[in-house]
Amino acid sequence: MVMISQLPSFNPVNLQVQAKLSILELSHNRPKCLSNLSSPSRSLFVSNSQQPQYPISLSPPVNQSVAAIVFGDGSESRLYPLTKRRSEGAIPIAANYRIIDAVVSNCINSNINKIYAITQFNSTSLNSHLSRAYNGLGLGREGFLEVIAAYQSPEDQGWFQGTADAMRRCLWVLEEFPVLEFLILPGHHLYKMDYQKLIEAHRSSQADITIAALDYIREPDPGFGLLKVNSQNEVAEFSWRSEKEPRIATSTRYDKASRHLLSKANDFGTEVIPGAISTGMKVHAYRFEGYWEDLRSISAFYEASMQIIKRSNMGYNFCDIDSPLYTMPRYLPPTTITDADITDSVIGDGCILNRCKIKGTVVGMGTRIGDRAIIEDSVIMGSDYQRNVCIKQIKHIQKSGIDVKGMDIPIGIGDDTQIRQALIDKNARIGRNVMIINKDKVQEGSREANGYIISEGIVVVLQNAVIPDGSIL
Amino acid sequence: MVMISQLPSFNPVNLQVQAKLSILELSHNRPKCLSNLSSPSRSLFVSNSQQPQYPISLSPPVNQSVAAIVFGDGSESRLYPLTKRRSEGAIPIAANYRIIDAVVSNCINSNINKIYAITQFNSTSLNSHLSRAYNGLGLGREGFLEVIAAYQSPEDQGWFQGTADAMRRCLWVLEEFPVLEFLILPGHHLYKMDYQKLIEAHRSSQADITIAALDYIREPDPGFGLLKVNSQNEVAEFSWRSEKEPRIATSTRYDKASRHLLSKANDFGTEVIPGAISTGMKVHAYRFEGYWEDLRSISAFYEASMQIIKRSNMGYNFCDIDSPLYTMPRYLPPTTITDADITDSVIGDGCILNRCKIKGTVVGMGTRIGDRAIIEDSVIMGSDYQRNVCIKQIKHIQKSGIDVKGMDIPIGIGDDTQIRQALIDKNARIGRNVMIINKDKVQEGSREANGYIISEGIVVVLQNAVIPDGSIL
Amino acid sequence: MVMISQLPSFNPVNLQVQAKLSILELSHNRPKCLSNLSSPSRSLFVSNSQQPQYPISLSPPVNQSVAAIVFGDGSESRLYPLTKRRSEGAIPIAANYRIIDAVVSNCINSNINKIYAITQFNSTSLNSHLSRAYNGLGLGREGFLEVIAAYQSPEDQGWFQGTADAMRRCLWVLEEFPVLEFLILPGHHLYKMDYQKLIEAHRSSQADITIAALDYIREPDPGFGLLKVNSQNEVAEFSWRSEKEPRIATSTRYDKASRHLLSKANDFGTEVIPGAISTGMKVHAYRFEGYWEDLRSISAFYEASMQIIKRSNMGYNFCDIDSPLYTMPRYLPPTTITDADITDSVIGDGCILNRCKIKGTVVGMGTRIGDRAIIEDSVIMGSDYQRNVCIKQIKHIQKSGIDVKGMDIPIGIGDDTQIRQALIDKNARIGRNVMIINKDKVQEGSREANGYIISEGIVVVLQNAVIPDGSIL
Amino acid sequence: MVMISQLPSFNPVNLQVQAKLSILELSHNRPKCLSNLSSPSRSLFVSNSQQPQYPISLSPPVNQSVAAIVFGDGSESRLYPLTKRRSEGAIPIAANYRIIDAVVSNCINSNINKIYAITQFNSTSLNSHLSRAYNGLGLGREGFLEVIAAYQSPEDQGWFQGTADAMRRCLWVLEEFPVLEFLILPGHHLYKMDYQKLIEAHRSSQADITIAALDYIREPDPGFGLLKVNSQNEVAEFSWRSEKEPRIATSTRYDKASRHLLSKANDFGTEVIPGAISTGMKVHAYRFEGYWEDLRSISAFYEASMQIIKRSNMGYNFCDIDSPLYTMPRYLPPTTITDADITDSVIGDGCILNRCKIKGTVVGMGTRIGDRAIIEDSVIMGSDYQRNVCIKQIKHIQKSGIDVKGMDIPIGIGDDTQIRQALIDKNARIGRNVMIINKDKVQEGSREANGYIISEGIVVVLQNAVIPDGSIL
Repeated sequence: MVMISQLPSFNPVNLQVQAKLSILELSHNRPKCLSNLSSPSRSLFVSNSQQPQYPISLSPPVNQSVAAIVFGDGSESRLYPLTKRRSEGAIPIAANYRIIDAVVSNCINSNINKIYAITQFNSTSLNSHLSRAYNGLGLGREGFLEVIAAYQSPEDQGWFQGTADAMRRCLWVLEEFPVLEFLILPGHHLYKMDYQKLIEAHRSSQADITIAALDYIREPDPGFGLLKVNSQNEVAEFSWRSEKEPRIATSTRYDKASRHLLSKANDFGTEVIPGAISTGMKVHAYRFEGYWEDLRSISAFYEASMQIIKRSNMGYNFCDIDSPLYTMPRYLPPTTITDADITDSVIGDGCILNRCKIKGTVVGMGTRIGDRAIIEDSVIMGSDYQRNVCIKQIKHIQKSGIDVKGMDIPIGIGDDTQIRQALIDKNARIGRNVMIINKDKVQEGSREANGYIISEGIVVVLQNAVIPDGSIL
Repeated sequence: MVMISQLPSFNPVNLQVQAKLSILELSHNRPKCLSNLSSPSRSLFVSNSQQPQYPISLSPPVNQSVAAIVFGDGSESRLYPLTKRRSEGAIPIAANYRIIDAVVSNCINSNINKIYAITQFNSTSLNSHLSRAYNGLGLGREGFLEVIAAYQSPEDQGWFQGTADAMRRCLWVLEEFPVLEFLILPGHHLYKMDYQKLIEAHRSSQADITIAALDYIREPDPGFGLLKVNSQNEVAEFSWRSEKEPRIATSTRYDKASRHLLSKANDFGTEVIPGAISTGMKVHAYRFEGYWEDLRSISAFYEASMQIIKRSNMGYNFCDIDSPLYTMPRYLPPTTITDADITDSVIGDGCILNRCKIKGTVVGMGTRIGDRAIIEDSVIMGSDYQRNVCIKQIKHIQKSGIDVKGMDIPIGIGDDTQIRQALIDKNARIGRNVMIINKDKVQEGSREANGYIISEGIVVVLQNAVIPDGSIL
Repeated sequence: MVMISQLPSFNPVNLQVQAKLSILELSHNRPKCLSNLSSPSRSLFVSNSQQPQYPISLSPPVNQSVAAIVFGDGSESRLYPLTKRRSEGAIPIAANYRIIDAVVSNCINSNINKIYAITQFNSTSLNSHLSRAYNGLGLGREGFLEVIAAYQSPEDQGWFQGTADAMRRCLWVLEEFPVLEFLILPGHHLYKMDYQKLIEAHRSSQADITIAALDYIREPDPGFGLLKVNSQNEVAEFSWRSEKEPRIATSTRYDKASRHLLSKANDFGTEVIPGAISTGMKVHAYRFEGYWEDLRSISAFYEASMQIIKRSNMGYNFCDIDSPLYTMPRYLPPTTITDADITDSVIGDGCILNRCKIKGTVVGMGTRIGDRAIIEDSVIMGSDYQRNVCIKQIKHIQKSGIDVKGMDIPIGIGDDTQIRQALIDKNARIGRNVMIINKDKVQEGSREANGYIISEGIVVVLQNAVIPDGSIL
Repeated sequence: MVMISQLPSFNPVNLQVQAKLSILELSHNRPKCLSNLSSPSRSLFVSNSQQPQYPISLSPPVNQSVAAIVFGDGSESRLYPLTKRRSEGAIPIAANYRIIDAVVSNCINSNINKIYAITQFNSTSLNSHLSRAYNGLGLGREGFLEVIAAYQSPEDQGWFQGTADAMRRCLWVLEEFPVLEFLILPGHHLYKMDYQKLIEAHRSSQADITIAALDYIREPDPGFGLLKVNSQNEVAEFSWRSEKEPRIATSTRYDKASRHLLSKANDFGTEVIPGAISTGMKVHAYRFEGYWEDLRSISAFYEASMQIIKRSNMGYNFCDIDSPLYTMPRYLPPTTITDADITDSVIGDGCILNRCKIKGTVVGMGTRIGDRAIIEDSVIMGSDYQRNVCIKQIKHIQKSGIDVKGMDIPIGIGDDTQIRQALIDKNARIGRNVMIINKDKVQEGSREANGYIISEGIVVVLQNAVIPDGSIL
């Protein structure tokens, strides 16, 4: 049995490299391994299986033998305030999508149709998105995306203590459909990978664990792990640059040895994988070349968004026909444009664009932009369409004398407003004659009471925030 | 028992007016009526009912008592060539929709969730659209949209001979769920009506048939009917301007008398309603004020589309939140714009707009527009997205020396092409440097072999047509 | 390019055998073939393809390269009266299913997820079943079951003239998704076949057409075809025992030669396949061993149903976990049993069985059986559950003095009634003290006015029929 | 604004009665109330609303104005061990259903289609059931059942501390769709109530809170609350018999006063309602007559199940056509019976019953019962069908010498086994010649290691338990 992890940095011989985690566990019939075990707990696993045991040379198709486990969220985030009300995977991206759609679509396009999403932190909108986008549809008769939300049980009243702990406590669910391998994936990465190739590499190497890794060095980032590999791609060492425990997960062997590891460790990256290496398990690396972004900070998210809109897109290709990006179906009307000058931008469904100028910007679903507004190099996350036109009712309410706290400013971008290098979260109400230009060139600043913060020089207007007419940010 | 029909022209006292058909049949408990009938065949109808019989004052909700019958198509059409491969109801409109969505959405927004769509002519794409858009979703546990395609049976090997004939032959299906009234609707009309009000009017008047009618005079159109009404809205006469049998349907009483009418007539407009009036049944008119367009010609369709994009839209409002327009869910990527100047236009999902100029135009889903293209006052129906990028494969094929008949021109509008006052049907391949401007001011002309026709001065490029580089139309 | 047909009788060397049709057309890249063609119309086909052209040794997976075409019905039927209101494929079987579910489930279990169902005759309930059972669900993101109902078009106002004609007229739809092969299947056969093996055989033989055939001789049946094959499984002759044109379909080559054949022939069995053989195309047979029943007569249907309930089932296994039988999802309550003695029977969902005795019987969904009823060796098709309890309302109606024509007899089997060797179609109302035992040992007889016919000695009670209390049949 | 709670005991004048909680909060336009509030936080609520404010006389339909909040689980349970791996709402009942289906179906049948299910304890199978059973289907275009699983957020890292706390922390979600009233319901009650009548009563009384209550006295139960009401149905006192905090929820006013209450209290029953009464809010009772069971103990669950199978069912009617019970759709084969004598029982879909005797028993979906088995007065919960036939594989595994821990006993009831007055949880493996008869007449006993416990004299075999051949329990 084996396991694969994805690491964005990778070097074939003996080099410390950065590692981002995401792991695929695969199990072979390894008689040597099994004969060492007096009472292999693998039996439970195997006995559930409706598939016959395959010899390595006759591998079962991935849609029968692999289940993906997607971790949708982390308990702390440099993506705040985008994660104030939602987990990382639920952040809107590329006008029409949520971040987690990238990883789920990778699974679907790799023919993996048994997907578990384990969620715990700010998970409501993620759970809702996943249920609506992937329930029943598209995953075939035997496929499913099952959300496993954190829960209390008689045996354990606490929250999941880490990714390995979460997987351990959910094993009784994960074992319901018999699979031979688990593919463990963080839900906030942006990349396209054919997991079938990863699984092939894993099977042919007969490794216990295989970790996917990028074939080049990235700039230091505490979220990254470090791999030491030899010329056979075997991993000799795995560590983290950061002293803080990383949040992203990996898996362990699922025979007696792996259960033992899993039974003690709470986290894959800091405990399970190092433990596997130290106990002599065969841990391999899988070489990946291509775009791979983990969106772990406001600026990383902003940069990834700016890549998307470039004509010579070097980033994530969200309109690739061969490996389409799936998401929730939509029923929005077409975008209505009165008189707009639009350059290097993507426009989501159901927008209303008046006499405005839009340049280098991601305009999310249901965005309304007023006359003479100028938007540059920004990300507008859009709005839930149904709220867009509530202004009628607001007027009605105002007459009744009730304080509406900025509700008279409609959702969207007001007339004569200018926005540059900013992220505008969903359902924000930007008034008229507003300037969101970071005029004081602040790098970091929290004005949450005023509806925004500044992170790495980028102004981030909060979800549902109200920016009054004439404000200058 | 009663019946309501929709007529776009209406005058309260004794005036001949135009009538467009669409009929709602409603049945009361009319003891007087029933007592006249020795063996009322209504009993069958009633006995199927799971709902108790309601006194008039305690009317059952429409979602339990009314079924809508939508006629999706006609056997001849002035909308050719838009109807070459599809029926009228399946024609794409307003970038993201099909014409029939308007009537089906009216039903849903009026709380009518038992809908039958009867189809016969070029019905494949209509059947497919209806199944995908409305199957299972949105109509509630007891709701359904059931497509009844024309079929042969041991008793009758012929096609439906008219709307009344179609309804008569489908009665065994229509009676499966017990309803008290039938609402009979043509599937190619563009309007918003709360059918619940129509039903209320019908019930309170205790008419046998109620016909909805517009409250103003329209210009003569052979598709229109003529109503003579008195001050109580009773219809004294119903006729057609055209000598040709109109294609659109209405219904008749469903007791013995109505069955008698239905048993002899093939068409509602020319036979059933006049017959009902002549036999003394109570036929009423229901006054409707608002936009109502029947899209019966290329120019009517073009004008309705031009209304849609105007800021001061006097036509059909396709983004009304209170009565939304439903359709097939979509999973398209956002529209990507390189550098576009867009005025008074609507843009569907998933377009790719390069350095182009778009004015007064409906740009349908998945449209690709090349550099320096200029589109004015036109309707581009867009493309099935998946075909959009097949150009790669075409190039591959070309190398193998096989004739690809214009397949090297990608779907969409080529660079430097100009289009004015034209309809470009789906999946057309317009080359580079093309001028579609009706340069010879032709009013009517058929160049079908060349991929287009001209109707009422509007150039219509056919579905899947190829217009080579440099063509001037 | 090649084609495979299914034939229930097969003999490897030079023997005339019976053939039942159902054909899989597969196309290779055959340069020799293509070079013979001046302007191969295959190009159209290829150019639509999003899949690269595969060398024979690297065959594409069937879910990308094969589309199934299921013919749901025939214009005449020895299954009358079961086909009075429905086509053959829509006949209820095995308590919970419709006949067509067997073929569609074969496709799904063979990983073929592009399915077209062509229907024309009495197709309403079949279309409805297919839309509800297979729309959106289970066939994956790129899968679909598309119903193509017979339609009129400007070019052709007539009905489909045969299976080849139907396929020819629907080619514009069938070509929408590029596939390399068509699998042509009748919708009323009962068997389990892994079509992937059939396709493999077809690809490796490089035949133009491959016809699946049974490896043993069946008793003469005019519905069967006759094959003469040599030791390489090449078919030298294909003919029909019956002089009447058989209704079931097959396909032809899809290059110029095949188009030529298709352009002239209306039916696969009598024209296309013999034509292919006579013009020297390579027609192969595929050997199949197993249960294969075509349900072409009342007695064949009855015998197949009796096989299903035997403990040592030699017939169709409808509860095989490895290749499950799919159908419409159900929401029925569990079956309620007061006091029943049940032997060798299958019981559908939502039945109400009172103090009765059931032996060797298929009891369909929603069946109600009264006290002291005795049912033996019969098929009860059950009822649409919602109608089951309408008796309350009937009583209400009776009070009002309206003639309810037997509606006072509830749907189901009345108290003290005995049924032996009979088929009771859906929603029939069998009264109390009825004997359905064919007391006069009639072989053939039509008493349709009385609600039943006798076919091959089996009493068949019609759908919705009413058999009054005390009747003896 | 007001609130209604359901209480199973009720007495019109000044009597202490038992109360089971389940509360409907409804808000009126109460100008008097609003004028008392300087800055009514109701404004937020109102401003979200797309519906105009209705005068009382013109009440909005419930599907636009009411949202239901279902609490699916409790943190402790006398239903253990049925709640070992699932919450109360997820316990299988009546062969084909889960307990929570009763309350959700009440909502659907009452035309309430905005449903939130708040879950925290052992919620995995409940969440999965709700997503699969109610996602997208049946609730109409604007309807939804949204599962809100407990989650951590930056503001609050803890679990929900009670029902009021859960609601308070989820208010930001609950306010997304503007409603006027909340209906608060425990998810483990078995009853049929038309909530529309409750809402009408609430609206006409203009109460702040309305609590539904049974109109007769039940035997003492610590789960019951106590109501003191006057002749106008106003509640003067609300208390609990039990000293332990009850787990079931209710709601509070949602204006400033109610927010104040909600902001301090964690639980509706023990804090919010008593607080509302003490601060002078108008708390009313709604009289309900009918079956109402809270299934709070093993014996209550057993008794309710025994009621279901009685012919003269005085309990919950799970096959009522007018108010059907919804659940997850199923695709199981029909039940196959070799030779069974079945009395007063209900049989789920897809069972295999051999030569057995079944009396007074609920036989759940996918149950297999062996030859000569005798089952009396019991509840067999059945099995996930796919696991049912894994015995083949087990045999395969056994050969390889791996310990399979009872896996050689197939799921279901073995040959010659007798079961009396027992609950057999899902997927249990009962061997041959087993006697489950509580031979020692034990009242309470925990033999969890042996796969069962005894509660109130009823033997409960655990989910997935293995009872070896020849055991006597």
